[in-house]
Amino acid sequence: MNFELKQVPHRSAKPRSAGVTMAMDKGLSAREAEDFISVAGAYTDLIKLGWATSYVTGDLDRKIAVYQQAGIPFYFGGTLFEAFLIRNQLDDYKRLMEKHKVGFVEISDGSIDMEEKDKLKYIREFAQNFTVLSEVGSKDANKVLAPYQWVEKMKQELEAGAWKVITEAREGGNVGVFQSSGEVKGGLIEEILHNIPKEKILWEAPKKEQQVFFIKALGNEVNLGNISPNEVIPLETLRLGLRGDTFHLFL
Amino acid sequence: MNFELKQVPHRSAKPRSAGVTMAMDKGLSAREAEDFISVAGAYTDLIKLGWATSYVTGDLDRKIAVYQQAGIPFYFGGTLFEAFLIRNQLDDYKRLMEKHKVGFVEISDGSIDMEEKDKLKYIREFAQNFTVLSEVGSKDANKVLAPYQWVEKMKQELEAGAWKVITEAREGGNVGVFQSSGEVKGGLIEEILHNIPKEKILWEAPKKEQQVFFIKALGNEVNLGNISPNEVIPLETLRLGLRGDTFHLFL
Amino acid sequence: MNFELKQVPHRSAKPRSAGVTMAMDKGLSAREAEDFISVAGAYTDLIKLGWATSYVTGDLDRKIAVYQQAGIPFYFGGTLFEAFLIRNQLDDYKRLMEKHKVGFVEISDGSIDMEEKDKLKYIREFAQNFTVLSEVGSKDANKVLAPYQWVEKMKQELEAGAWKVITEAREGGNVGVFQSSGEVKGGLIEEILHNIPKEKILWEAPKKEQQVFFIKALGNEVNLGNISPNEVIPLETLRLGLRGDTFHLFL
Repeated sequence: MNFELKQVPHRSAKPRSAGVTMAMDKGLSAREAEDFISVAGAYTDLIKLGWATSYVTGDLDRKIAVYQQAGIPFYFGGTLFEAFLIRNQLDDYKRLMEKHKVGFVEISDGSIDMEEKDKLKYIREFAQNFTVLSEVGSKDANKVLAPYQWVEKMKQELEAGAWKVITEAREGGNVGVFQSSGEVKGGLIEEILHNIPKEKILWEAPKKEQQVFFIKALGNEVNLGNISPNEVIPLETLRLGLRGDTFHLFL
Repeated sequence: MNFELKQVPHRSAKPRSAGVTMAMDKGLSAREAEDFISVAGAYTDLIKLGWATSYVTGDLDRKIAVYQQAGIPFYFGGTLFEAFLIRNQLDDYKRLMEKHKVGFVEISDGSIDMEEKDKLKYIREFAQNFTVLSEVGSKDANKVLAPYQWVEKMKQELEAGAWKVITEAREGGNVGVFQSSGEVKGGLIEEILHNIPKEKILWEAPKKEQQVFFIKALGNEVNLGNISPNEVIPLETLRLGLRGDTFHLFL
Repeated sequence: MNFELKQVPHRSAKPRSAGVTMAMDKGLSAREAEDFISVAGAYTDLIKLGWATSYVTGDLDRKIAVYQQAGIPFYFGGTLFEAFLIRNQLDDYKRLMEKHKVGFVEISDGSIDMEEKDKLKYIREFAQNFTVLSEVGSKDANKVLAPYQWVEKMKQELEAGAWKVITEAREGGNVGVFQSSGEVKGGLIEEILHNIPKEKILWEAPKKEQQVFFIKALGNEVNLGNISPNEVIPLETLRLGLRGDTFHLFL
């Protein structure tokens, strides 16, 4: 911290399992990645190269080197896993991850239809060599899961070896546990939390109102993801009760 | 591309006439322009210095040098043409373009009232020395053109020598062929396409939903413009069927 | 300016008291601050390190050095004042400002309840050593002030020694003199202007439509704040009548 303030709530130290912030990089340059790390690296636990942007991003290796030098794990978005899978190229995907020494993998079915038993098989398989983030929820706003389905999938995927489950929200924060307007589906989230330990969930929550909701509901050490790189600092102030929305929460 | 994926749809090589991406720079620094080019230069065909931002942007010459060195043509927004025109300074405008070796010019009437015959005269005049992009549509949401007027203007302007016609949408994507909400006017677009060859149109489409609409309707080699520099990579993934919204489109 | 255009409206020279643009930096890196200054430094009069982001922003001293070398005053957001105040650490706050040679201070009650007489006391106290910007309005959309209350507070705070009063709008432009949709409360603003000299007010107006409203209502030398760094150039074109929205305003 840059100066002393009393009564600022506790934050776990890195590497942490609670209070995780996952940022989504959708095409930063190597220099922009350096800039991002220089201001917010201390508060960023994981960096996702959003969906399949890594396929086209120029100068990718140099950016990856920036993240690796900073000691911040990065991983490829779940859509890339699905793109390799649907093309019968999963072996190529594993080789790609090995080449870049990627330790985390996202197993998702946000854009494809997959039987849950197959998803669980992939989770088990990848969990042998990678830390698995499994994602629940579709990118298609019309494919709505019932609360019991959320819970069932999350339970099974954690049992299959997922380190944490992610709730799909997209870059826009407009599907899954959110309405298309971005509003939070409170009842659904309550149902999920009644059944799944909160530290095992990473909530994609790109919008400030969503972040505020989760911090108010689950405390400042809630795991949040799909945070735009330039929103990691604002999010950290929310976690510390140093922005209007959470100013009185920890006093 | 950074790795091998099968069944990724074809993209024309640069310089291309179809599948063009025009990015809008509204005040990047020279270094930010370098960053942009380093990740997305391969997918950027044209760069517009938005409206008259070039008048005030500091360190402009250095940025222009970055774009020129990268071999990506840039041009001044149509509002700048209109600003020179309404001040009777068109000769100054030509000198400015010559000074910067600008090869493209946008002839528009988004902010001023101009008789179509005068616009056609300017198109003919500028087409002698520049590649002309003529723009149809007003920046004023209250000035709505009937479908037949869109078609008529486009036809005449192409005949007068425009390389392509642009459909005005502004930075916000909220006028012209879009509702003020950003929603696409599907019927209008159908009417236009019934009459004008699609490769002759460059659709301003700053919002993701608009880009998805055009890619679904016209294929991945549709010409799209007013793309924010940090959205060129996301757009390219849409064109390649590597984002949720177009994932199944080319499989 | 980068080239000659006739009939462009006058802008005061720096340091100016009217036509002030206050930009909000919510976590730029030192290099991003350099980039911002290189394109828009000439049009930026004040830089606010938004709310308490300065507490967590990495590499802060280097960024501050960039702003100081550019000769552009920066100051800490009002929420930081409130965070120190509520912790009984105002002396620490003064020391922090002295350490960084900060000349401006924002005295606000956007997140805390404060009696107006106490606020006036702080304004008087800080005005002895700092240029005071006092802010009126709550960050809480439910705490609405009546027009006469806006006027009364503004009058008293200016009399107590505030250089200018700021109208609270947040980063989102959705409280205070704006509806939660961002729409302008025109009647309220008229009431304020009937009673307070316009050059004494700095309007937080992060959204383009809000900036356009104020430029149309109060002229191009209106004081505007909470401008995102990459929106300073677009705002300057609005002030100069070189964007569609204000194109005819000064001709």
